[in-house]
Amino acid sequence: MGLKGELDLPRRYQVGVKNKITDVPGVKVGQVTLKKGDINTGVTAIIPAEHLFKEKLLASGQVINGFGKTTGLVQVAELGTLETPILMTNTLAVGTCWTALTRYMLDRNPEIGLTTGTVNPVVMECNDGDLNAIRQMAVTEKDALEALAIAEKGKDFSEGNYGAGTGMRCLGFKGGIGSASRQVPYQGKKYQIGALVCTNFGAFGRLRAGNRLLGEELRENVLAWAKREGNQLYDRYQKDQGSIVMVLATDLPLSSRQLGRLARRSAVGLGRTGSYIGDGSGDIALAFSTAQKVSHDAKSIQTFAFMPDSQLDPVFEAGIETIEESVLSALAHAETLTGFQGRTVYGLRDFLK
Amino acid sequence: MGLKGELDLPRRYQVGVKNKITDVPGVKVGQVTLKKGDINTGVTAIIPAEHLFKEKLLASGQVINGFGKTTGLVQVAELGTLETPILMTNTLAVGTCWTALTRYMLDRNPEIGLTTGTVNPVVMECNDGDLNAIRQMAVTEKDALEALAIAEKGKDFSEGNYGAGTGMRCLGFKGGIGSASRQVPYQGKKYQIGALVCTNFGAFGRLRAGNRLLGEELRENVLAWAKREGNQLYDRYQKDQGSIVMVLATDLPLSSRQLGRLARRSAVGLGRTGSYIGDGSGDIALAFSTAQKVSHDAKSIQTFAFMPDSQLDPVFEAGIETIEESVLSALAHAETLTGFQGRTVYGLRDFLK
Amino acid sequence: MGLKGELDLPRRYQVGVKNKITDVPGVKVGQVTLKKGDINTGVTAIIPAEHLFKEKLLASGQVINGFGKTTGLVQVAELGTLETPILMTNTLAVGTCWTALTRYMLDRNPEIGLTTGTVNPVVMECNDGDLNAIRQMAVTEKDALEALAIAEKGKDFSEGNYGAGTGMRCLGFKGGIGSASRQVPYQGKKYQIGALVCTNFGAFGRLRAGNRLLGEELRENVLAWAKREGNQLYDRYQKDQGSIVMVLATDLPLSSRQLGRLARRSAVGLGRTGSYIGDGSGDIALAFSTAQKVSHDAKSIQTFAFMPDSQLDPVFEAGIETIEESVLSALAHAETLTGFQGRTVYGLRDFLK
Amino acid sequence: MGLKGELDLPRRYQVGVKNKITDVPGVKVGQVTLKKGDINTGVTAIIPAEHLFKEKLLASGQVINGFGKTTGLVQVAELGTLETPILMTNTLAVGTCWTALTRYMLDRNPEIGLTTGTVNPVVMECNDGDLNAIRQMAVTEKDALEALAIAEKGKDFSEGNYGAGTGMRCLGFKGGIGSASRQVPYQGKKYQIGALVCTNFGAFGRLRAGNRLLGEELRENVLAWAKREGNQLYDRYQKDQGSIVMVLATDLPLSSRQLGRLARRSAVGLGRTGSYIGDGSGDIALAFSTAQKVSHDAKSIQTFAFMPDSQLDPVFEAGIETIEESVLSALAHAETLTGFQGRTVYGLRDFLK
Repeated sequence: MGLKGELDLPRRYQVGVKNKITDVPGVKVGQVTLKKGDINTGVTAIIPAEHLFKEKLLASGQVINGFGKTTGLVQVAELGTLETPILMTNTLAVGTCWTALTRYMLDRNPEIGLTTGTVNPVVMECNDGDLNAIRQMAVTEKDALEALAIAEKGKDFSEGNYGAGTGMRCLGFKGGIGSASRQVPYQGKKYQIGALVCTNFGAFGRLRAGNRLLGEELRENVLAWAKREGNQLYDRYQKDQGSIVMVLATDLPLSSRQLGRLARRSAVGLGRTGSYIGDGSGDIALAFSTAQKVSHDAKSIQTFAFMPDSQLDPVFEAGIETIEESVLSALAHAETLTGFQGRTVYGLRDFLK
Repeated sequence: MGLKGELDLPRRYQVGVKNKITDVPGVKVGQVTLKKGDINTGVTAIIPAEHLFKEKLLASGQVINGFGKTTGLVQVAELGTLETPILMTNTLAVGTCWTALTRYMLDRNPEIGLTTGTVNPVVMECNDGDLNAIRQMAVTEKDALEALAIAEKGKDFSEGNYGAGTGMRCLGFKGGIGSASRQVPYQGKKYQIGALVCTNFGAFGRLRAGNRLLGEELRENVLAWAKREGNQLYDRYQKDQGSIVMVLATDLPLSSRQLGRLARRSAVGLGRTGSYIGDGSGDIALAFSTAQKVSHDAKSIQTFAFMPDSQLDPVFEAGIETIEESVLSALAHAETLTGFQGRTVYGLRDFLK
Repeated sequence: MGLKGELDLPRRYQVGVKNKITDVPGVKVGQVTLKKGDINTGVTAIIPAEHLFKEKLLASGQVINGFGKTTGLVQVAELGTLETPILMTNTLAVGTCWTALTRYMLDRNPEIGLTTGTVNPVVMECNDGDLNAIRQMAVTEKDALEALAIAEKGKDFSEGNYGAGTGMRCLGFKGGIGSASRQVPYQGKKYQIGALVCTNFGAFGRLRAGNRLLGEELRENVLAWAKREGNQLYDRYQKDQGSIVMVLATDLPLSSRQLGRLARRSAVGLGRTGSYIGDGSGDIALAFSTAQKVSHDAKSIQTFAFMPDSQLDPVFEAGIETIEESVLSALAHAETLTGFQGRTVYGLRDFLK
Repeated sequence: MGLKGELDLPRRYQVGVKNKITDVPGVKVGQVTLKKGDINTGVTAIIPAEHLFKEKLLASGQVINGFGKTTGLVQVAELGTLETPILMTNTLAVGTCWTALTRYMLDRNPEIGLTTGTVNPVVMECNDGDLNAIRQMAVTEKDALEALAIAEKGKDFSEGNYGAGTGMRCLGFKGGIGSASRQVPYQGKKYQIGALVCTNFGAFGRLRAGNRLLGEELRENVLAWAKREGNQLYDRYQKDQGSIVMVLATDLPLSSRQLGRLARRSAVGLGRTGSYIGDGSGDIALAFSTAQKVSHDAKSIQTFAFMPDSQLDPVFEAGIETIEESVLSALAHAETLTGFQGRTVYGLRDFLK
């Protein structure tokens, strides 16, 4: 548990039991992986809590760089709440996942669109077009619903080439789904911060891990290997490519404004792994707290408890560490993949001892 | 052309030839109307220019109130460009229209997802659940593609109960699609500002038109009529309901920042028609300029021409007037409709002389 | 109490006892007026509550149009709190008032800059350069401190040509300080919403009051009078000039996010009085709630009570009405003034019956 | 030129001739240092170009964390332009510097406040209260004007304990003014990116430099030294303290939107030096381009040239590198200082070989 060897990170905060986003009580993850010939893609579903529509969570979305298509952020910003599970997928599958997530919500909430308003689905995405025949739009509503159904079971989930992460690449290596968690002690209680990311960003050679410029260290080795194999993809990987979508979950009692502060700091975690937040990168973070519910039907004054902002420094630092380790964990788990048009992206661990 | 009678507005700027968004050269509109039993909904497509993906338009989206699900605004904000047509539809059809618009773009741009990145579809919505069985999710990809195909023909379009406006209501009356335009003289040339709105906002009794508090004037009359007909919808219409999505088009040479300034002022136009921008209203404005193109493939420096900000006052005032008249035009055109569950919303003109 | 005659407004919400911002319990106002030859300016101080630094108020600043120099909004946005009184003054006096307000805070909080951090002064401004020799920078720190001292006494204050409003003009008439309030019933209790504005915006001929296009109605009359008097200022007043700064106070239990929603709707109130939010207008609204305190020294979790967003419609509508009436009240109270370089701006009431 | 030894950084972009912000043609810096007993503070002035009011520069301010008092950002955001020099100082001197900068602008532009509008002074700050008796408010208008006068001469400037940096501390070491620059080749021409920062942020032990966790490496050594000297300040430095203000200058033809993208990426540079962007940190970046002017008096359409966004990756990466090196350069230059109340903050280089 935790990263080892070259990817080892200095940790200031205790790692959660599973070192995954699911260390935050109530958070569940499910994935559907589509891997067949040119198709290498999928869906990752995060269920933050039960009965989300009736009992919304405080949340905030933050756009680190807006070259992305994540849906739902307008309403999250206005109301400070999240009312659906979160789906991650490939860019061109956003509409399909949006529709599937809507159907999922309609099924569970017969009043939506009838005696109450509509619903605000949150779908996040990265472009896996290097390894996935993205134009085929292979993801179906059924896939998305299945990812949600798997999530509901609340079992463990895999990192690397799974779900939305199947066809992603990151910093010139195979990317994918990564997750990590930290514990933040506050007033005698241990709180959890967990992250799940889908990594698809970064230029080759920039990877950093803790105190090492690993991308530089491995550069020659990787390029030599690519040359030997006739892999021309790596010429292109000198440029930043793609995106990262990040979900931060916590059981700390934070307001939506405070969750926004936490989410914005993901830029530091990204920077520490080697991102320079390229032009074409849709780097988007969504943070939610499971600590309290915002009742959909409330008519009277509701009471909330919040940490003082002055006490947030450990939360911010642990959040950054969680993002950082999630990115590296995605790299540590993702395996070399040969996909669309026979292109191969190497798994980082092939180059580590 | 132009509103008459009680809806007559004082005009400071000359009305365009058609008094519609299509007065802006190159802008085309197409609609598909679904009207059958409980289904009263549709799609309105706006094509701002040809070859949008390769030659993007400067644009800005502004959130007046964010209780809405419009997609694409994150990227429009980051890059200041619009690269797809705009679809308007009912709230739960956003995913379907997103997918259809994506397919439309893939068809016309074989490089998307292959040799270049993906695409950022803009879909706007209001909730027509009062008159449309919105949970049936009746809008199909085919409907959306047909609206786009009709738009491409560049013919005239209808206001009121058409396209996305079919099942909408506004200020207690039947709402729908409205459009208007103004001419702004600048340095010896006449420029166009056009708006197209889908009106679904507002509480009964608040309608204002120019110098009249028309909602108040008509209140008793409408309520008496509703009572006579056993129409119980009007009890509920005391509360603000729904949303408005607004598209502003112009051939003025404006930057994305300046277009944002223009779009933000739509709040004033809304206010003048009686909106108080209710909590549940997704009031969202998107403005674009057809004056110049942002090349998708540009590698070298591009030149742009912009009006000085100090000269924008007539642009702002004409923009507000265009929004104001578009809203009233939707009300003027929309006819009484009996829809989902036998509910009836009255057309405003039944109550005007 | 309340506007009469041509300025009469339809009111949906009950007017507060004083019909001023001071109807919100604890809110105090003090003003220093400088009126001597070419100097026509001053300072208006609003004290939202006692011991603000130690017990901050939830707050939000919203920029309707950012051609303005209001200080302090960056920190208010980040932390959602207000920790000083608010000063309004002329544009070039912002630095002086900032320093005076800082000294005022240092005097009352010996720990600032010593055992705790610094302080975030909020100073708002409009440009009274038409009637005030603004380049002389006549406002002193002493003036600002005196306005604060007067405010502390908690007596009544005057509207029109007082304090920061002394030399302002609005919609072609003499502007100045205006204030109004409304009561919002919620769950068996009456809450207050009060506004204080310093009006300096708008183009001649655009004034609207309730259901009348008053600017149009009075145009000929005013221009004839100006011509008779050789007053050339009115040629220039065809263009929007200046700004408006607005403070909204309430004892409703609102979060900073909700206060931001309230403040943003001031654009509608402005629009209803005839503003088109001109390019050069610094239209800025700050809203705070006195309902609960954010302790500066808190280390442990704090509890807050908030209205559900779904119940905010009356708050929004009453807020708009309060802004609208505050603007008209400023116009109703401000008297004709001959100031800098012998320029005269007419008081609106000279032209009303 | 450039950092050496433990502070050495991997550089992807060529360092400018002076490796300072003044490598950007036309940019000038001047500083006034106040160092006497308990007073350790000052003013740093940056003059981006001549005749700024009449010929404004495109600019953008970005708030990384808003616990700060920088003035002028509201208008910079609205109009995308910078029209005054930039002053940096201690937090409580903002008002004084604001007034001085205003007088400086009035002197040079007799039309301000007379025949044209007012002016928008940009003043940035950090809290030097650890080493400076900040409550004494020692900075005078004369100091600020002198810093501007020195800047006008266009000579070299010192890093470390000078100007606004005199009393600052950073990551547990003595902070201050730091500067660096990079060259970005684009279409056969070499462009400059320069940064000037005033570093006052960060918790002890977090310092990172390139590929080293230097803060961790030096921790024991520093704490032992502090203990030997009876220096109790270092107990407190475990917590993030203070802020950083950053100015990015370039002669690249960038729009205000693009400059905003550049400025936002300073968060990555900060993160790479060890910041976790603490709650109390006012981390604010302002970026401007000297490539083209926005005429104050323009009435007709103006033409601008911009790089395509797709070509910005080297700009972003070089900008991050410039910020990173500026922070480390401040640390490399700042010397141990004993100031207010006899407190001592150690210069980093005392602990490097």
